[in-house]
Amino acid sequence: MKIAVDAMGGDYAPKEVVLGACQALQQFPEIEEIVLVGDEAQIKPFIDEQVKDRLSIVHTDEVIGMNEHPATAFRQKKQASVRLATDLVRDGHCDGIVSCGNTGAQMASAIFRLGRIKGIKRPAIAVLLPTLQGPKLLVDAGANTQVDPDNLLDFATMGAVYMQLLTGQPAKVALINNGAEEEKGSDLTQASHQLLKQSDLHFIGNIEGREITEGTADVMVCDGFTGNVILKTLEGFGKNIFKLLKREIEKSARYKMGALLLKPAFYGLKDTMDPKAVGGAPLLGVKGVSIVCHGNSDARAVVNGILVAKECIEAQLISQIEEAVAKDGMEE
Amino acid sequence: MKIAVDAMGGDYAPKEVVLGACQALQQFPEIEEIVLVGDEAQIKPFIDEQVKDRLSIVHTDEVIGMNEHPATAFRQKKQASVRLATDLVRDGHCDGIVSCGNTGAQMASAIFRLGRIKGIKRPAIAVLLPTLQGPKLLVDAGANTQVDPDNLLDFATMGAVYMQLLTGQPAKVALINNGAEEEKGSDLTQASHQLLKQSDLHFIGNIEGREITEGTADVMVCDGFTGNVILKTLEGFGKNIFKLLKREIEKSARYKMGALLLKPAFYGLKDTMDPKAVGGAPLLGVKGVSIVCHGNSDARAVVNGILVAKECIEAQLISQIEEAVAKDGMEE
Repeated sequence: MKIAVDAMGGDYAPKEVVLGACQALQQFPEIEEIVLVGDEAQIKPFIDEQVKDRLSIVHTDEVIGMNEHPATAFRQKKQASVRLATDLVRDGHCDGIVSCGNTGAQMASAIFRLGRIKGIKRPAIAVLLPTLQGPKLLVDAGANTQVDPDNLLDFATMGAVYMQLLTGQPAKVALINNGAEEEKGSDLTQASHQLLKQSDLHFIGNIEGREITEGTADVMVCDGFTGNVILKTLEGFGKNIFKLLKREIEKSARYKMGALLLKPAFYGLKDTMDPKAVGGAPLLGVKGVSIVCHGNSDARAVVNGILVAKECIEAQLISQIEEAVAKDGMEE
Repeated sequence: MKIAVDAMGGDYAPKEVVLGACQALQQFPEIEEIVLVGDEAQIKPFIDEQVKDRLSIVHTDEVIGMNEHPATAFRQKKQASVRLATDLVRDGHCDGIVSCGNTGAQMASAIFRLGRIKGIKRPAIAVLLPTLQGPKLLVDAGANTQVDPDNLLDFATMGAVYMQLLTGQPAKVALINNGAEEEKGSDLTQASHQLLKQSDLHFIGNIEGREITEGTADVMVCDGFTGNVILKTLEGFGKNIFKLLKREIEKSARYKMGALLLKPAFYGLKDTMDPKAVGGAPLLGVKGVSIVCHGNSDARAVVNGILVAKECIEAQLISQIEEAVAKDGMEE
């Protein structure tokens, strides 16, 4: 198995990305080779001698910045690291690609260089969220601002395949809505509810925001606008609640003592909730494994992103999705 | 000042509602009278003798349940407690109404019995969210599933009036979006961004979900679908994070000791984040003060809901909104 890594993408690239790639090679002997795509001179200083035989570099000067307009940058920068890394998958040199860079540019690279899976109009980003019952999948987490019911059905189908690969269990699918009742919601969610109900999926109905972190459903489906807002709201609140707690703690010596005793438990909790601990979100619906990592990924997050790529490759995610979608299509 | 209270609305009605009303009378001497609307026989046992001179009951047998279809129930149950309580405001007997019951039914009562403020097409629910910089306003928190840019401008205008009344400061307004840049977002948010930018409001641009609990903006505007999902996601996560922490704490005796010392700090934090501590969300855009309380309100939450009503009445919220909207209209 060979994995392409966009060495230049992310807030702490190339350093943390390269360190993460080296650590991944040490941890996962199944990975034959990692191909780092980016500026050779900037990459080399961080390469770990112990794994250098399993690392190669594809040099390029071009990088797409975090704040560049994805489609424009993708079109103009034909040698951009994320684009070249994706081409390594397209051309069969690598089995998957991992990037912590501009998500839109990674998405454009995946759609236009790998292509879409037959029957899927809109690829989506699938992100695992921390819940009371372990990580559960949110899809679409931000790729498609505006969608139709068919798109949501596709997201549900692909999400269910991915979660079944991760857990070995059939996935319970729910639709995120502003009310549990099927007659509640927007035109989009009402129509989508009917489509999901008629599908072969294990559809458990609508869920409200309150249930998202309960873990009631394995796959939670919504449009990418809502998904993006949910993901970032949780991310912000997860961080800010600790700041609020810190303010409380600073009010007395007794609290400070308590906090000292509890410190490792807080770290445990932060870890449970940390998106970096999961570290990789697959783009579902494109013809190749393409894993999106958080822009602020450190080496540990990069390792986790590479682990997700490895798992998707091993489980043959792409052909599994192709099968599920083809089956859906035949029934129509 | 006289306030009508829907004694039958809410998960713990009438007991907690009546207890709350009595406590409010003791705490706020400015309230001349509270009119409890509901089943006299069920209300009477909970009335506090000390304040009974300032309490009256308008009897009715009809109640709209939490899960009834709002519009249908409103039409069919002409004697429903929330409807009669709203009529007390319409007919000038009371200055505001508070309910913990079916929000849709309260909304229908407000729109059809009080009427809309001239120039406002869609009334909205404005909810205060806990943030690092104190409570900030989310509007619309769930009244309107589908809206247009003019509606969002109205929500922003009304929200800014309300926040200015609460804080005495001009309110910073932001649009909730899936990206900070103005060219990002759905058709709705892109068009709304332009309208807000051209308005007289102190518009600070788009904010992402991450910033919601930062408190960057005083008023955060979105459609009611998104607002409902945000509100309930925060509510659920705020509860579930303590469950996750509890699991961590139970792992060792040391943690249990730390948690014991920290207990009051946790309560302080829970309090900061508890929607019940704020306890009342005004319906903005109707011709009368109508305060929505959480369905699971206890007596303390009811007191807070009545306090919000009192503040809105004292600050002349309705005429302030009428002025702001009229000013907007004149400029067009």
